[in-house]
Amino acid sequence: MTVVTLTTDFGVESPYTAAMEGVLLSMNPRLNVVRITNSVPPQNIRAGSAILAETTPFFPEGTIHIAVIDPGVGTTRSILYAKIGEQHYVLPDNGLLSQLSEQEQPSLLFRLTNANFWRRVTSNTFHGRDIMAPIAAHLSLGVPPQEMGEPVTDFHTFDSIVPRVMADRICGEVVRIDSFGNLITNIHSEHLQGRPTDQRALIICGLYDTYGVMNTYGDGYEGSLVAIINSSNLLEIAVVGENASKRLNLQVGTPVTIGWEG
Amino acid sequence: MTVVTLTTDFGVESPYTAAMEGVLLSMNPRLNVVRITNSVPPQNIRAGSAILAETTPFFPEGTIHIAVIDPGVGTTRSILYAKIGEQHYVLPDNGLLSQLSEQEQPSLLFRLTNANFWRRVTSNTFHGRDIMAPIAAHLSLGVPPQEMGEPVTDFHTFDSIVPRVMADRICGEVVRIDSFGNLITNIHSEHLQGRPTDQRALIICGLYDTYGVMNTYGDGYEGSLVAIINSSNLLEIAVVGENASKRLNLQVGTPVTIGWEG
Amino acid sequence: MTVVTLTTDFGVESPYTAAMEGVLLSMNPRLNVVRITNSVPPQNIRAGSAILAETTPFFPEGTIHIAVIDPGVGTTRSILYAKIGEQHYVLPDNGLLSQLSEQEQPSLLFRLTNANFWRRVTSNTFHGRDIMAPIAAHLSLGVPPQEMGEPVTDFHTFDSIVPRVMADRICGEVVRIDSFGNLITNIHSEHLQGRPTDQRALIICGLYDTYGVMNTYGDGYEGSLVAIINSSNLLEIAVVGENASKRLNLQVGTPVTIGWEG
Repeated sequence: MTVVTLTTDFGVESPYTAAMEGVLLSMNPRLNVVRITNSVPPQNIRAGSAILAETTPFFPEGTIHIAVIDPGVGTTRSILYAKIGEQHYVLPDNGLLSQLSEQEQPSLLFRLTNANFWRRVTSNTFHGRDIMAPIAAHLSLGVPPQEMGEPVTDFHTFDSIVPRVMADRICGEVVRIDSFGNLITNIHSEHLQGRPTDQRALIICGLYDTYGVMNTYGDGYEGSLVAIINSSNLLEIAVVGENASKRLNLQVGTPVTIGWEG
Repeated sequence: MTVVTLTTDFGVESPYTAAMEGVLLSMNPRLNVVRITNSVPPQNIRAGSAILAETTPFFPEGTIHIAVIDPGVGTTRSILYAKIGEQHYVLPDNGLLSQLSEQEQPSLLFRLTNANFWRRVTSNTFHGRDIMAPIAAHLSLGVPPQEMGEPVTDFHTFDSIVPRVMADRICGEVVRIDSFGNLITNIHSEHLQGRPTDQRALIICGLYDTYGVMNTYGDGYEGSLVAIINSSNLLEIAVVGENASKRLNLQVGTPVTIGWEG
Repeated sequence: MTVVTLTTDFGVESPYTAAMEGVLLSMNPRLNVVRITNSVPPQNIRAGSAILAETTPFFPEGTIHIAVIDPGVGTTRSILYAKIGEQHYVLPDNGLLSQLSEQEQPSLLFRLTNANFWRRVTSNTFHGRDIMAPIAAHLSLGVPPQEMGEPVTDFHTFDSIVPRVMADRICGEVVRIDSFGNLITNIHSEHLQGRPTDQRALIICGLYDTYGVMNTYGDGYEGSLVAIINSSNLLEIAVVGENASKRLNLQVGTPVTIGWEG
């Protein structure tokens, strides 16, 4: 049973996603369709790219991932098939592969132009249902991507916001806020290798600071600011037992610095 | 593997839906249960009817669709089984079939009254779990609807809000706003057949207007008002790259006219 | 096909849940994963306990239920395996079993400490993905819980808020508000056995009152306050056709008394 996942910005529990699921199951009843989320912020390709990188590598080898964050729907932007590791992706060529491809380049990449594999009538506004779902169903039934389009070598990416690494500090920023209000930064545990993370490290986030990277939220006092390495190996700022974003009034883009006096 | 879908107004990610899913899988472990949405506006039968018409025809033949938008639960309103095309419906007789039956009349219609096919103890407030889910499970196991009730010929519908078609104009209205804020009207592409849709057509929506129906959002300037035919073949008003409903402060019910000077 | 359910406080349509689903399906592709909800109020163990008790008994025998409402993640709190009836539970030992165990004590109870059955690298902040999902997958593949940890006899519970039962009245309170705004109390139909529930019973909820427990919402006038026994056999206060919580401005904790003058 092949798994197909759906990641969209259609809005919570959108019936549009159900229509895609209907198309998929009509073409291949043996699919296991998993909705990753419909709650990508509208037209936010950067957020979609982050969610794909955080979730899709956990799926079984051979899973087909459809992503419909597609502000250019109906224009000349291409629809891509990409194979990265043992995962397959069907998505518009607009930067959604950025974070995944930082870790590993696609081993196969096709621009999907053969309308024989789409729904007979395609709308101008809903390529998820009319083009991407049918393509994913055909892939799951064994149609090779080369029958559905032509190989390409290039695809859109956007620059990731990388932290600046200096002798005595690393300057990053808040790149995402999770549903608990924790502030997730772009400072990776690899940036910290060979540097002390105990009380000698000072973490500054907006107007607030704390010493030392803790192992877990529970090591801090209730209501205190803590820095931890989270489950995606990123430096994360939290307030124990509270919503840090609301409590400190901090947003995406807030500078976060970790420094050492030497 | 039979597909059963669930459309409810229980609220986002409602555990009530999970209870229905548990009942279904307990009776038939081979079901593939798909949640269309729990986010139908509370007790809004008109919205539920629209969602059923937009999504259920995309599902595989033989799918069983349960809809629980049921303000009359526990009263004498009936529970219906209807077959429309190759899709099966189990839902209260309160108008939920209105939009589906405009396209095609039910070929089978039963009032389901045989309590032998319900949960042994039924509550007065949750017929989705106690009556509709068991009925759907029995249908999926091959019990014919005539064993579960008696045939009827009539069912509740509400009048659809149809546009007025005149020699020099068509007067419709906004009937739905999608999660992107696009304004979906009740003017269908069939209403426009034989009429020009290029710059000779003037589309008026509230205080705003635009000339010509575009093929896609991308054909308009960022921030400008555009009219397109959407993926359900309905005239739709959008603001390129923005949320039209918020930007223009327009709601469901706003008059939309498309006119030709001749 | 074994069913695994997921109940979390990760937030609506959280991609974190998708990561857990990916881990489960990677280890056992034949699982049927059902999301009960991601919308348990953050870190609200009492709410999580109520949702598990209301939904999980409806699932097929042998279902494995994972619950991740886990404010103590990364501390020394244990992860439990419990068997209650024919349902299996994998969850942190923090009170989540309280309401289920009021109805029936676990017949098997293990503290799961054997890291051989976890993901090779485990984070300090996401034990749902790194420990609980792999354990559930191993259970579904037939690994007995005694291989994954040691038996225990004790687990955390919190006191339930029980109503005070007196000769002429029962004093309870609102314990939950559903998505329709109905006020669900902790007064069970069993508390009312042998007492009249017709017009001789006066139900007082905050500043409002009504005589008699009705069979269904539909028996009351539009806009009037009614008391009914709901589908979980609990006394529930509703306003016919409206959102009682908003209309009456009443919250969880509001005292509810049902009294008889004798």
